[in-house]
Amino acid sequence: MDGDADPGTVRPGGRTARVRAAVLRATGDTLAEQGFAHLDLADIARRAEVGKTTVYRRWGTVTGLVADLLTDMAEQSLPRTETGSLLGDLTANARLVRRTLTDPRQGALFKAVIAAATCDPRTAEALHRFYELRIQEWAPCVQQAIDRGEVPEGTDPHEVIRAVSAPLYYRLLTSGIPLDEAAADRAAEAAVAAARAGAYA
Amino acid sequence: MDGDADPGTVRPGGRTARVRAAVLRATGDTLAEQGFAHLDLADIARRAEVGKTTVYRRWGTVTGLVADLLTDMAEQSLPRTETGSLLGDLTANARLVRRTLTDPRQGALFKAVIAAATCDPRTAEALHRFYELRIQEWAPCVQQAIDRGEVPEGTDPHEVIRAVSAPLYYRLLTSGIPLDEAAADRAAEAAVAAARAGAYA
Repeated sequence: MDGDADPGTVRPGGRTARVRAAVLRATGDTLAEQGFAHLDLADIARRAEVGKTTVYRRWGTVTGLVADLLTDMAEQSLPRTETGSLLGDLTANARLVRRTLTDPRQGALFKAVIAAATCDPRTAEALHRFYELRIQEWAPCVQQAIDRGEVPEGTDPHEVIRAVSAPLYYRLLTSGIPLDEAAADRAAEAAVAAARAGAYA
Repeated sequence: MDGDADPGTVRPGGRTARVRAAVLRATGDTLAEQGFAHLDLADIARRAEVGKTTVYRRWGTVTGLVADLLTDMAEQSLPRTETGSLLGDLTANARLVRRTLTDPRQGALFKAVIAAATCDPRTAEALHRFYELRIQEWAPCVQQAIDRGEVPEGTDPHEVIRAVSAPLYYRLLTSGIPLDEAAADRAAEAAVAAARAGAYA
């Protein structure tokens, strides 16, 4: 019915995964180019070259689509780097966040989903889950630093990881100042200094 | 023509100021209740009980209106507190930011203007100016801390002030975790510890 099935040549799982990939790519592209206000399921289906019925049946609403995109972004995001020191680990994290936010497509996409989350509770939930997963991915480096005696016992790993990202997102959203590597390195350095002083214990 | 003038009883300056106050209040209320997407000059004029022509002539566009609202918010915002120590001053600042962001109307309003700024360059410029002014208002407390020897020479006052707000905005926009006073106090404490360690020098 949708005109995009080709059951003779493709495994069902493979086709489903390819349809999802195409739809989420089209969703991300549209968000990055035009923001959340212009998102429309029929446009996405056209752009993804996928039947409209498939998109409506599978994602239902624009917010359902954005929630699934955020799930995919969490699944696709890079695993943490282990360098042997808290400053090394957090610097790697800060530089990864900076690279993501300064990438033209990814940066615009993150701005769009943060904006969308301010006015839609389902998108907000999906966004919170995305950040929770990213924080969970990186939190063990703080536990390792506690074990090595680099930071005090009782330091909250999640708070330390959030402290690295916070100045980068704040700069992106509230200032016109470029997000350079020095800003990333400073964010990591400040988080380590504050953690050492016991600010997150 | 507008039907809202009453030249016999009101000074011209007073009337102009009152019209602006009514229009900006209506703009803020609408943004806080419905977000940026629903802003409409004619609706604002109706809500403010001001002639439509006046609103179109004076503000021209929705982005012009939001820019003026941000100018007014910067003018209206509270002066900094002086407590005699950097931790005291930054704690006062962090608590003020937290009070603003957890106030139902103000919090929703800030979310709405940050969202609007992600998709409109003029709103972004006005938002950046708002934060620049707020940072300038508070920066002298860091210079005083440098003079008192609390933090190293060459510490960037603007970076320290930004470091106080960043975790509070990050929490507001990317997590569902309530913005409590402990978060404000921790933001101030972390900024002081990082500044002392020379992270902003």
